[in-house]
Amino acid sequence: MMKMNDYIEIIDKKLDEYMPVKYPENIFKSMKYTVTLPGKRLRPVMCLETCRMFGGNFEDAIPTACAIEMLHAQTLIHDDLPCMDNDDFRRGKPTNHKVFGEAIATLAGDALLTFAPQIILKHSPNMGAEKLLKIMEEYFHAAGAYGVIAGQVVDIESEKSSNLSTYAALNKPSELLDYIHTHKTADLFKLALRTGAIIANATEEQLEEITEFGQCLGVAFQVSDDILDETSTFEEMGKTLGKDKAAGKLTYTSLYGLEEAKCKVACMLKKSYDIMNKYNIDSLVFDEIITGIKKRVGN
Amino acid sequence: MMKMNDYIEIIDKKLDEYMPVKYPENIFKSMKYTVTLPGKRLRPVMCLETCRMFGGNFEDAIPTACAIEMLHAQTLIHDDLPCMDNDDFRRGKPTNHKVFGEAIATLAGDALLTFAPQIILKHSPNMGAEKLLKIMEEYFHAAGAYGVIAGQVVDIESEKSSNLSTYAALNKPSELLDYIHTHKTADLFKLALRTGAIIANATEEQLEEITEFGQCLGVAFQVSDDILDETSTFEEMGKTLGKDKAAGKLTYTSLYGLEEAKCKVACMLKKSYDIMNKYNIDSLVFDEIITGIKKRVGN
Repeated sequence: MMKMNDYIEIIDKKLDEYMPVKYPENIFKSMKYTVTLPGKRLRPVMCLETCRMFGGNFEDAIPTACAIEMLHAQTLIHDDLPCMDNDDFRRGKPTNHKVFGEAIATLAGDALLTFAPQIILKHSPNMGAEKLLKIMEEYFHAAGAYGVIAGQVVDIESEKSSNLSTYAALNKPSELLDYIHTHKTADLFKLALRTGAIIANATEEQLEEITEFGQCLGVAFQVSDDILDETSTFEEMGKTLGKDKAAGKLTYTSLYGLEEAKCKVACMLKKSYDIMNKYNIDSLVFDEIITGIKKRVGN
Repeated sequence: MMKMNDYIEIIDKKLDEYMPVKYPENIFKSMKYTVTLPGKRLRPVMCLETCRMFGGNFEDAIPTACAIEMLHAQTLIHDDLPCMDNDDFRRGKPTNHKVFGEAIATLAGDALLTFAPQIILKHSPNMGAEKLLKIMEEYFHAAGAYGVIAGQVVDIESEKSSNLSTYAALNKPSELLDYIHTHKTADLFKLALRTGAIIANATEEQLEEITEFGQCLGVAFQVSDDILDETSTFEEMGKTLGKDKAAGKLTYTSLYGLEEAKCKVACMLKKSYDIMNKYNIDSLVFDEIITGIKKRVGN
């Protein structure tokens, strides 16, 4: 059975291969810079492993897995811009706009949004048109205004009104927070899982199961991020921390406190395990991922 | 035979229909704001007319035509951002970030990049998977780092080195300018023409002809834009003018002067006509478009 590091090695090699630096060089360098920053490659790993779990050949999912990592990098580049979260560091390195300037960073994010699905179409010659279209639909949905961007928009707007009573008039804060976590984080997890499953010809029922699993895992991961923003250090995380709190952002810890947040992580991971057991999902990799999230928050 | 205004009416109606304002409202409003600013709808009109010219039913091309207008709006929103051209007005109205703020404007541009192809997939149920994939490929190519973004990158970088000798060391300025015009403008024209032709089941040869036509028309249009940046007024154009010159941008007029630029427009339009005649293209709409560009520069 494959382990995380086996997949990470494959993904890193392919990301490099799929992204040659062409003219005009600055844009390709900028795109590649953030995509290839060392990382855990959680989303592409989950895509490959899901494909394997459902009886597919994980190699068929490599272009899609890499495309999802590119999409993830796109969200990081634009989220870090001065007009958004204004972050100077990401994974221990200067953020994209710090290296290439704001204009190129903006364009690099734009370019990745269409470069990523291009990689899928170009490198999946045997997938069949119908399946490719299904994957395109999943990609567009997760990447756009119904997916990760919806989460980012509500996240930004939550910052503006630090007085929670403002929300109360519109929605309950807890509902808003669920909305942000679902779209900002879980949607890309679900994209990774669903496309991996689709490539393996999973049934509709299996797709639903894996989507539920992705929702739990995504929320667990995002709440653990909220916790680390308060409790971790720059050296551990490679990015500036404590910013959410300073900005008055709506996070799980700001709303419920640290202890409650840790309980939430434990609860969502328990749910993820339950789903794995219920559907007889046998995966070292998802064990590693769940254990990793547990360790992040010291559970 | 259809005229421009017939198509414009259809496109405007469909753009409105394809873009309902959902939660979170600000992002959908921001996307729709720029897409539905009154305009000539050149690119979608060209898509529909090309489909008709090659024997297709232009109605089959409506979702694709509208998607191309959305992509065009995306480039406008991001080009107008403070970190790019920093423009306050577009089509006589405040630019997107002036209305919605920079963060939402950035995200609206991002969202349009995947919303547009989603519209094609969603509203073209009878097109067949193979043809849809072809259109996706055309879209990704034109929208990305090999297309319109390549043009924008080189355009921005041309601004930095106002001393043309800097280019001379790298490329001839005339080559750089061709590169900028080809990618920044002609690539979206070619996308409109090629997808219209593909929907009508045009042959490879016809695709090449129409691509050549799009290249000439695109360059003519961009050079006419360079001219108007020097000679027109805010009231006529609905945007701040004279900025290219002030920024030391590489434009056709900065490189060759106004008179030479007018000759270039005339020459490219003559070429467009020749291609139309050579291939027996009978189109009131392209007559109107070519006459429109001629009038723009007083030829």
